[in-house]
Amino acid sequence: MRKILFIVFCILLLNVRAQKADSVFVRTIYDEALENGECYQNLHSLCKDIGARISGSAEAEMAVHWAKKLLDSYHFDNVYLQEIKVPHWERGTNEAAWIENENGEIVKLNILALGGSVATNGLLSGEIIKVKNVEELKKHPQNEIKNKVVYLYEAFDPKYINTFSSYGYCYPIRGNGANEASKLGAKAIIIRSLASPTDNHPHTGVTSFEDNVNKIPAAAISTENAEILNNWLKKGSVSLKMEMDCKTFPDVTSYNVIAEIKGKDEKIITMGAHLDSWDIGEGAHDDGAGVVHCIEALRILKKLDYQPNHTIRCVLFMNEENGNFGGKYYAELAKKNNENHICAIETDRGGFLPIGFDVLKSKEHLSIVQQYQKLLFDYDLVKFKNGYSGVDITPLYKEYPEMVQLGMAINSQAYFNYHHSEADVFEAVNKRELELGSAAMATIVYLMDISLK
Amino acid sequence: MRKILFIVFCILLLNVRAQKADSVFVRTIYDEALENGECYQNLHSLCKDIGARISGSAEAEMAVHWAKKLLDSYHFDNVYLQEIKVPHWERGTNEAAWIENENGEIVKLNILALGGSVATNGLLSGEIIKVKNVEELKKHPQNEIKNKVVYLYEAFDPKYINTFSSYGYCYPIRGNGANEASKLGAKAIIIRSLASPTDNHPHTGVTSFEDNVNKIPAAAISTENAEILNNWLKKGSVSLKMEMDCKTFPDVTSYNVIAEIKGKDEKIITMGAHLDSWDIGEGAHDDGAGVVHCIEALRILKKLDYQPNHTIRCVLFMNEENGNFGGKYYAELAKKNNENHICAIETDRGGFLPIGFDVLKSKEHLSIVQQYQKLLFDYDLVKFKNGYSGVDITPLYKEYPEMVQLGMAINSQAYFNYHHSEADVFEAVNKRELELGSAAMATIVYLMDISLK
Repeated sequence: MRKILFIVFCILLLNVRAQKADSVFVRTIYDEALENGECYQNLHSLCKDIGARISGSAEAEMAVHWAKKLLDSYHFDNVYLQEIKVPHWERGTNEAAWIENENGEIVKLNILALGGSVATNGLLSGEIIKVKNVEELKKHPQNEIKNKVVYLYEAFDPKYINTFSSYGYCYPIRGNGANEASKLGAKAIIIRSLASPTDNHPHTGVTSFEDNVNKIPAAAISTENAEILNNWLKKGSVSLKMEMDCKTFPDVTSYNVIAEIKGKDEKIITMGAHLDSWDIGEGAHDDGAGVVHCIEALRILKKLDYQPNHTIRCVLFMNEENGNFGGKYYAELAKKNNENHICAIETDRGGFLPIGFDVLKSKEHLSIVQQYQKLLFDYDLVKFKNGYSGVDITPLYKEYPEMVQLGMAINSQAYFNYHHSEADVFEAVNKRELELGSAAMATIVYLMDISLK
Repeated sequence: MRKILFIVFCILLLNVRAQKADSVFVRTIYDEALENGECYQNLHSLCKDIGARISGSAEAEMAVHWAKKLLDSYHFDNVYLQEIKVPHWERGTNEAAWIENENGEIVKLNILALGGSVATNGLLSGEIIKVKNVEELKKHPQNEIKNKVVYLYEAFDPKYINTFSSYGYCYPIRGNGANEASKLGAKAIIIRSLASPTDNHPHTGVTSFEDNVNKIPAAAISTENAEILNNWLKKGSVSLKMEMDCKTFPDVTSYNVIAEIKGKDEKIITMGAHLDSWDIGEGAHDDGAGVVHCIEALRILKKLDYQPNHTIRCVLFMNEENGNFGGKYYAELAKKNNENHICAIETDRGGFLPIGFDVLKSKEHLSIVQQYQKLLFDYDLVKFKNGYSGVDITPLYKEYPEMVQLGMAINSQAYFNYHHSEADVFEAVNKRELELGSAAMATIVYLMDISLK
């Protein structure tokens, strides 16, 4: 009995010591991020030296070059490119739209073509029909929609605490609205921007068409413009005039950019973000912040001379925004090469204050993170729950359904003020919050590395 | 035995039902704040129609009028003013300073007189002596300091996760630096602004002198200017030229502004913020946000027709920034009138995302809040710990040491980018984060009302 008690005591002691060692190491991670951090200057460079970087653009090509060079400069064990094919859509130069009511009053709209939209081929004119969302649209008979401009007006519901819930709820008007409207013979669609505030810059994003559906012009209008239009439509009919000359070109070659610190075994922990952005603003929060989080997390672990149990792989995915071909190909190649993926963590929710981690599906996996709740409390990482991981790493999960997947949970309140718009620039990111995000990523990678066998 | 089991079962059932009722009510609080919120427009009015409002100024008088009128418009059970005397310090019109090195190079500094400073009476000149902080200053012999301009250069330590810890650490250079320098014969002091980022706007705040100490001019320089000065001082001696014509006038009459919803008993729960601000910027985060949090929380409780057990009192304190006479008099009068104060909650940490509550000292009081941890998790209120409540309500605690005191914990990362500076304007506040702050205040007041007997 004494012997057993002694063994139990030793195990407890070792555990306490291990926890203490963990907490000391986490403190050094945060010290490095906050005192000698490089992520803020890296984000400045990505935003100002490269700028907006939609897949297929010269800027996206330069972003690949930029990332490779930066990762090379840190002398990780391995830095390489993974070749993929990506779509190449361009906004073109002309984007203009006006609404006109029965009294002949005219207002110019602030619009942005949705990614994947086709051009109008000169000035398109049409009567506006107001429909709340895709569900309502599907209920309309073809004759009500044919030759009309469908205006999808669904707004964010402010009652959701997490703004990503509002976004998810409204997403179909942007992602699938044009497709469904085209099936009913609409000549174009405009949508209320997917944004939290009422302001005057439109927010773009991808719209998709099924293979056999005729592509039609699709644009987002600012939420302020949407309020005006809503008021006008209460009083009578309103027509739209719009010109856009966006175009889809043949697919081009691009790359995921990858860096590794080799582990003691062959198992792999991926931390990822996406290098591409939309073609306006600077992609600072979406997802420049995530890119520099991941690079910085790997830099910190190397700087602290951490020798991981498993290979830590930082993956900067290309083409998350309009196709996710980077994420898909990464998963495909992993499977083909018989790689052993045990964990993936994504950061794609902006450069705001990190507040915790969402763990994909499994309660058992959630408890792996929850065991460190006390340690993470001091760093304001306090929100752990089951939830979504991220777009880039979802294809990997499909190949490795046993793996642990996490998404970094970040204060979402202001995200959709900036998302996919001209407002998403470097100046909208707070230095300390960005640095805390990098430290949180380094910390969770470290904790997963010591926890997962 | 069966009877006992039945009673236990009934208690458990009642408890589950009560918890459910609580969570339903909290949801309605958040819905009202996010869907029909008035705090953002109220803050806009306070910032733009009143503006900066230092104690004793015309703007402070207008702010009292503004608050009284607004509170009257909501038809609470009671709205009244509490007369106090407050200091009246004015910045004056001229504020300018230059540094000059041995090569005759000159740089103009961005300065702000510290509140309580005296004027220079024309252009003051002196050699700068660099001292880290008050502790170091006290070690200097008088002959090293006499007739010099003391430059206190201590910077925020970025390693603190909560920026208020950095502020607390550096606070003496602003609060007590001039006093200690004067004792050693210094002719003036300048300090590095108490701020997180390196930027070019100075941050003011109060400086105090003991009764028998000769008052000297004291100013904050921007953190960017501090970096330049640090570099110059490494290379040789540097002199300062400075003019300020700030002045202290006789005390004036002002007011705390108070509104109440009457409770079923005579016990009182106070929620407070301070109506005065510094004399630059618009006092948006400090503490306009807190003011509209409290007003909105009371509005929501009334709108939802909540009948409190105890009187809920919203107190907008005057003169937190340079004397705290509002807080002191409120406590004094409470005691004198034999009021029964059981709880006070302060919001004075900005309009950013609320993350939880700091509970003053007592672990037992902390556990009262912690019992609602699960309920509050859904609203991202996740950080509960023992900690400081707030300046305004501290005098009340001294009179009622048994009472529960809380401070709303708010994401602190960006607070000291704005604090006491021209940058603290309405535009720096996010609508949703402000609304969540109001909802959090209404929620904690409600939970305290049902928990405290």
